Amino acid sequence: MTRERLYLYDTTLRDGQQTQGVQFSTAEKAQIATALDALGVDYIEGGWPGANPTDSAFFDVAPQTRARLTAFGMTKRAGRSAANDEVLAAVTNAGTQAVCLVGKSHDYHVEAALGITLDENLDNIRASVAHLVAQGREALFDAEHFFDGYKANPDYALACCRAALEAGARWVVLCDTNGGALPAEVGRITAATIAAGIPGDRLGIHTHNDTEQAVACALAAVDAGARQVQGTLNGLGERCGNANLTSLIPTLLLKEPYASAYQTGVTAEALRGLTRTSRMLDDILNRVPVKQAPYVGASAFAHKAGLHASAILKDPGTYEHEDPKLVGNERIVPMSNQAGQSNLRKRLAEAGLETEPGDPALARILDRIKTREDEGYSYDTAQASFELLARQELGQLPEYFEVKRYKVTVERRKNKYDRMVSLSEAVVVVKVDGEKKLSVSESLDDTGSDRGPVNALSKALAKDLGRYSAILADMRLVDFKVRITQGGTEAVTRVIIDSEDGKGRRWSTVGVSANIVDASFEALLDAIRWKLVRDVHP
Amino acid sequence: MTRERLYLYDTTLRDGQQTQGVQFSTAEKAQIATALDALGVDYIEGGWPGANPTDSAFFDVAPQTRARLTAFGMTKRAGRSAANDEVLAAVTNAGTQAVCLVGKSHDYHVEAALGITLDENLDNIRASVAHLVAQGREALFDAEHFFDGYKANPDYALACCRAALEAGARWVVLCDTNGGALPAEVGRITAATIAAGIPGDRLGIHTHNDTEQAVACALAAVDAGARQVQGTLNGLGERCGNANLTSLIPTLLLKEPYASAYQTGVTAEALRGLTRTSRMLDDILNRVPVKQAPYVGASAFAHKAGLHASAILKDPGTYEHEDPKLVGNERIVPMSNQAGQSNLRKRLAEAGLETEPGDPALARILDRIKTREDEGYSYDTAQASFELLARQELGQLPEYFEVKRYKVTVERRKNKYDRMVSLSEAVVVVKVDGEKKLSVSESLDDTGSDRGPVNALSKALAKDLGRYSAILADMRLVDFKVRITQGGTEAVTRVIIDSEDGKGRRWSTVGVSANIVDASFEALLDAIRWKLVRDVHP
Repeated sequence: MTRERLYLYDTTLRDGQQTQGVQFSTAEKAQIATALDALGVDYIEGGWPGANPTDSAFFDVAPQTRARLTAFGMTKRAGRSAANDEVLAAVTNAGTQAVCLVGKSHDYHVEAALGITLDENLDNIRASVAHLVAQGREALFDAEHFFDGYKANPDYALACCRAALEAGARWVVLCDTNGGALPAEVGRITAATIAAGIPGDRLGIHTHNDTEQAVACALAAVDAGARQVQGTLNGLGERCGNANLTSLIPTLLLKEPYASAYQTGVTAEALRGLTRTSRMLDDILNRVPVKQAPYVGASAFAHKAGLHASAILKDPGTYEHEDPKLVGNERIVPMSNQAGQSNLRKRLAEAGLETEPGDPALARILDRIKTREDEGYSYDTAQASFELLARQELGQLPEYFEVKRYKVTVERRKNKYDRMVSLSEAVVVVKVDGEKKLSVSESLDDTGSDRGPVNALSKALAKDLGRYSAILADMRLVDFKVRITQGGTEAVTRVIIDSEDGKGRRWSTVGVSANIVDASFEALLDAIRWKLVRDVHP
Repeated sequence: MTRERLYLYDTTLRDGQQTQGVQFSTAEKAQIATALDALGVDYIEGGWPGANPTDSAFFDVAPQTRARLTAFGMTKRAGRSAANDEVLAAVTNAGTQAVCLVGKSHDYHVEAALGITLDENLDNIRASVAHLVAQGREALFDAEHFFDGYKANPDYALACCRAALEAGARWVVLCDTNGGALPAEVGRITAATIAAGIPGDRLGIHTHNDTEQAVACALAAVDAGARQVQGTLNGLGERCGNANLTSLIPTLLLKEPYASAYQTGVTAEALRGLTRTSRMLDDILNRVPVKQAPYVGASAFAHKAGLHASAILKDPGTYEHEDPKLVGNERIVPMSNQAGQSNLRKRLAEAGLETEPGDPALARILDRIKTREDEGYSYDTAQASFELLARQELGQLPEYFEVKRYKVTVERRKNKYDRMVSLSEAVVVVKVDGEKKLSVSESLDDTGSDRGPVNALSKALAKDLGRYSAILADMRLVDFKVRITQGGTEAVTRVIIDSEDGKGRRWSTVGVSANIVDASFEALLDAIRWKLVRDVHP
């Protein structure tokens, strides 16, 4: 059976940049464009040339892509020709193969927001599209507020689409600009648009997530016959975001009826890069990846419930809708008091620790985990601390050094300028290779700001660990999370530390105590030990 | 026109707790149940009694709710009677009005996972439901893997539903357990189930977000005739989460065709508490609220694009799908500080501070709040700190005492029995009524356990404040939350402290610093000051 071509249009660099707090640099735009091209989307909308300097600069240095690089802008304004509209000129001057122009298709907006007649707006659409076509560009028309417009005045909304197509637009994109349309409505109106004579293979769909249904709305339009799908990586976008291509792409490739019916530019191999691509974007944005994200989140294939976890071990198909490997993600069966020995052996094997079934250490490990979880520890995320605990019970954890004692002082007082200032100082005493070492550090950073007692302690601990110091040089603390939780009957502090090293590894450790400094120190110690397990070769 | 009743079933406390890293305490469960009841859901699933100690304990102390409190469990196991299954007994012993039992409806799972015959499974469903009914309980049957089961063997999947209904179940809940079903499929199979003779007003829908369509799947089932919708607050849940009631509820109340067709237990007034309820859950979980969350996120009604922002000022309807006030949220239009002062005056009046329009202190207060929020402070929850800041600008905050300096020492070393022990000691120097007072306290509680540096500091600060000490005697710290957040370009620690006094007041204060001890001290100071504002009568 021949599959129909379905086109993917990415607008991460334009609509995605409307997210509160997001502003890509030119270099970041280039990096994202390259990743999108590797993924296999058909169009990459790069920005609005002329609307802001970064967007204009990006088109000058944009990487060569197989995907069609597209500039975004708006239809010409009334009262001047397309050739004499300098806003439109800035867009066409970017020199892209494809240009997408947004225009009104809702009668109320034409009259209230633009203050022109309905006919003038149709003229603007026609003239702008014709201008692009005359320049040899592929023209796309974004029909703003199409669904609300159709509900208010279907004839006019359709007339806008026809004006664009008749002037030579390759695509008319039906936009649910304010995100309020529901999937059934999007499906019904898209079908009606096609029934009114506008071919589905000239129709795109652009939806927003304001009712948490942007993905469903996009698929409803495809079901009705639209053949171009617009969205963004990780669902970036103004307000609640755009349709999330990171969810749409695997659904289109892996789920029926889509997998058998349509052909996209994304190969099965490229799909395996999806999780990496999603994380790369978070990295650029300095965001913590959303664990619950469909397909690509760290929790997307994590099985916590006892019933599920034990069934997963027999047959992953029982509780997984897809194989995580297909999108480059992985299965996680977290340690939990319900999980059994076979579950544990599998997790140990993943950490490179082979054990025999029935090894008495397995029961000891499970017991210790249960006890510690009751005390407030959590090994769901702190995989490195889990591994260290297991290694200890298996006799595979060398004692690289011993902490004899530490002392931290936090002081706040007036300085000589009569301003309150604070300073922490930490002394750590360790024994390494039989030698006792005292280290002291204070909490000031390069700018002279106090970074607090945990910072001072961390620096003092790493300062002199003898022959291990060189190994620890490329390690750094990248995240620090604190949570007050219940340990037995008392409130305790749980600290989770994420560390990173020059080899690109990233690992998480946990510490628990009623004393927050102690809890942090324990997590720091585990972070160092895990790194030493990896890199010390005796 | 009479609207049909649509029932809302919340499983935040059970399925929501399957989220990686989430484990509610008994007190937190009670707090969430109270909030759900105020919102107006019909059922509150509290947990699985017997599966873990917190769940069992919760049912003993659960608050009185208008909503039906529901215990969750599984159908009896083969080879014993319902009355002799101790797992089932633990569930019924919780004594709830309603009980929901999960059971298999997919033939493969019956044979492969349970290892029993298809008829034995039907018997288990029948006997378990009949057992509940005989005890006078409302019985619900959760048909696990229903959609996959229906695709594999529709007759058997339907037989499971019929078995439950014939035994007296009020509801059969169609579960898409692994989250792989798409909305069109959920709609088609739900319609087929109803066509096969199972009434829609006995059918519930339980969906997961693995393709980012849990909300759309739930609505597709409602469209097909199901009359109970299950989900969780903020879409908590295993893997990618459950259907998000925080999105579903406003959609059902505000959007057509739902608003005209159905009646739920949620009133328009309760809906205005939705944003607050969502934030409260994040607060309990110590999570940063998701800005992009539909309806309730801080960005849900934020308009960044220049085109949109200017239109919004003319007519909010142009780019907003709903009025943010309806869900207790607010519009954000960057660069627009119009709403600022009148909002502020309203908030001050709530704290008993009357101000004149145009009072120059108002602008100063807004400026300071903005600056402090950039530094990492948050006044959403810390109302008491907000009030103190405002009082200071209004000249209505006496300086009861002055902190000259403090010093805290945290030490960890071996004791005389060669065990590592830790101890903190705090010295605080204050000036009260012209007199300098030095106080020292250590961090040990009545049982001799170390409670950490903040505890020592808190005790030393309150130890001798002269004539104020008596006023502070009935005050205690009840909660302490720590979050690492962004202050300018640096990570800083934000501490929120909840305090309580003998008059039943409860108030929250905030402190921010790179130094966690400092941040805690600042929040402690505010807590004491707020209490003194209330109770010092000169």
